[in-house]
Amino acid sequence: MLTFVQVLDFVGTFAFAISGVRLASAKRFDWFGAYVVGFATAIGGGTIRDLLLDVTPAWMTNPIYLVCTALALLWVICFGRLLIKLNSTFFIFDAIGLALFTVVGVEKSVALGYPFWVAIIMGSITGAAGGVIRDVFINEIPLIFRKEIYAVACVAGGLAYWLCHSLALAPYLCQLVGGTTVFLTRTLSVKFRICLPTLKGGD
Amino acid sequence: MLTFVQVLDFVGTFAFAISGVRLASAKRFDWFGAYVVGFATAIGGGTIRDLLLDVTPAWMTNPIYLVCTALALLWVICFGRLLIKLNSTFFIFDAIGLALFTVVGVEKSVALGYPFWVAIIMGSITGAAGGVIRDVFINEIPLIFRKEIYAVACVAGGLAYWLCHSLALAPYLCQLVGGTTVFLTRTLSVKFRICLPTLKGGD
Amino acid sequence: MLTFVQVLDFVGTFAFAISGVRLASAKRFDWFGAYVVGFATAIGGGTIRDLLLDVTPAWMTNPIYLVCTALALLWVICFGRLLIKLNSTFFIFDAIGLALFTVVGVEKSVALGYPFWVAIIMGSITGAAGGVIRDVFINEIPLIFRKEIYAVACVAGGLAYWLCHSLALAPYLCQLVGGTTVFLTRTLSVKFRICLPTLKGGD
Repeated sequence: MLTFVQVLDFVGTFAFAISGVRLASAKRFDWFGAYVVGFATAIGGGTIRDLLLDVTPAWMTNPIYLVCTALALLWVICFGRLLIKLNSTFFIFDAIGLALFTVVGVEKSVALGYPFWVAIIMGSITGAAGGVIRDVFINEIPLIFRKEIYAVACVAGGLAYWLCHSLALAPYLCQLVGGTTVFLTRTLSVKFRICLPTLKGGD
Repeated sequence: MLTFVQVLDFVGTFAFAISGVRLASAKRFDWFGAYVVGFATAIGGGTIRDLLLDVTPAWMTNPIYLVCTALALLWVICFGRLLIKLNSTFFIFDAIGLALFTVVGVEKSVALGYPFWVAIIMGSITGAAGGVIRDVFINEIPLIFRKEIYAVACVAGGLAYWLCHSLALAPYLCQLVGGTTVFLTRTLSVKFRICLPTLKGGD
Repeated sequence: MLTFVQVLDFVGTFAFAISGVRLASAKRFDWFGAYVVGFATAIGGGTIRDLLLDVTPAWMTNPIYLVCTALALLWVICFGRLLIKLNSTFFIFDAIGLALFTVVGVEKSVALGYPFWVAIIMGSITGAAGGVIRDVFINEIPLIFRKEIYAVACVAGGLAYWLCHSLALAPYLCQLVGGTTVFLTRTLSVKFRICLPTLKGGD
């Protein structure tokens, strides 16, 4: 039986894979290339986290992520144009994925005994590094470094989780508050066009 | 005494390193940069595989890959122009390397007890990820995502290996059939100009 | 109490982070993006080394690198223009960091029982790979592959360390000679504009 978290994991993976496949298609990648970029977007963050934590990457223990990416590719092949109309839906899906992936990353690190500042970084890597790999593959400057609040939402969610944990709240409450913080920070910052200041350095 | 597989491994490493050195030279890298790109092309796929499988990367146990890359660099420095005439020879060498690397990746994963779908991915990473790293280093969109059948040949070879293994054939037969499938898929698809369809997505 | 090596480590991390933040600012990254690029420049080399050596990355055991990068970001935000006047100071800091990081990488590998040719590569990765990651993030061809003696200084320092070790000199002498070799190779090659030859290959 599917749990609620598994459904969210599926939704998040699907949304992340869609974003990879779409950007690959804009660069005229073939089907295989688009699949690989979609897969890397979906599992890249978790893989880097698991390499750093020295555990087996999650996608190597369950083929669901491969299937999910295949469905995302199929979706773009069949309904490519329809996607533009669904942009706001996928934005919500992506924010759900970001929230869930962040909480999973934080929890996994805490469970392995790492201090909280490591856990917050791992949560942010889980949520945001897949998009960085995607942008390196399509040879663009990573989007998350330049525009909108994205990885910062992960950091905010990680801090909220830590606050709840420090107050000895139940694990499910920590997850709920952490994930909601990511989701709201991400969606509200886009809605109200809140950005971080840009650097104007020396060179 | 050198075994037949060791000779093939040498040939494959040399061909992969040559491809890295040549593309680096087209971007006017210095000798050291060309050496690093050649080396990363040759050992990059196997290194990512070994990091994911949590074993020591193969090149850290045997300096042959360093020597092989040095010979490849020397070759390009001395016979740069001659290489153009030898293009078809190097295409064959590269396909041999691809076949061998794929089989090595599949075998290593199976020996460590991973399921076959993981082994097929590991075989493809061993064969194709070095070229992706090369293209990221020279700041180009990875070639294998856009043109020709390349990593798909690894997937086909992995599936052939798995089929033979399911039929309980002897290991050397699995290797032979798997490697031959990679080699033929790669060479025939180029000869007959077979490509995967390109995506035309939303954006 | 701070040891001398810890102060050098701080200086090197700060200099590496500054270089990341400055190049990010030239590409108009936001504060968060600049922080991430600075951090990756500072700890990227050591992280790749530790993943290859299968030990926990150093920055996950001590938050000093995060703090150091935050100070570097603050410095660029406050004194961006002043940095241009301090270019030669930061060049010296960067060379100190390069020397120290190389020696740390060599030592750590030797202590784990790896042969010397692996240790020299690990020293070079510790010193130079952070800059490669930085340049991939800002979507430029890695500088160290094209211009000036940089990673080659690490290789020279590693060889010097190995020579001292072979002559059974005391560890602190090996460190001193190795680090000084890196520093002098780097600074003198820039002062006298010594470069490696560029490849002119086939394509």
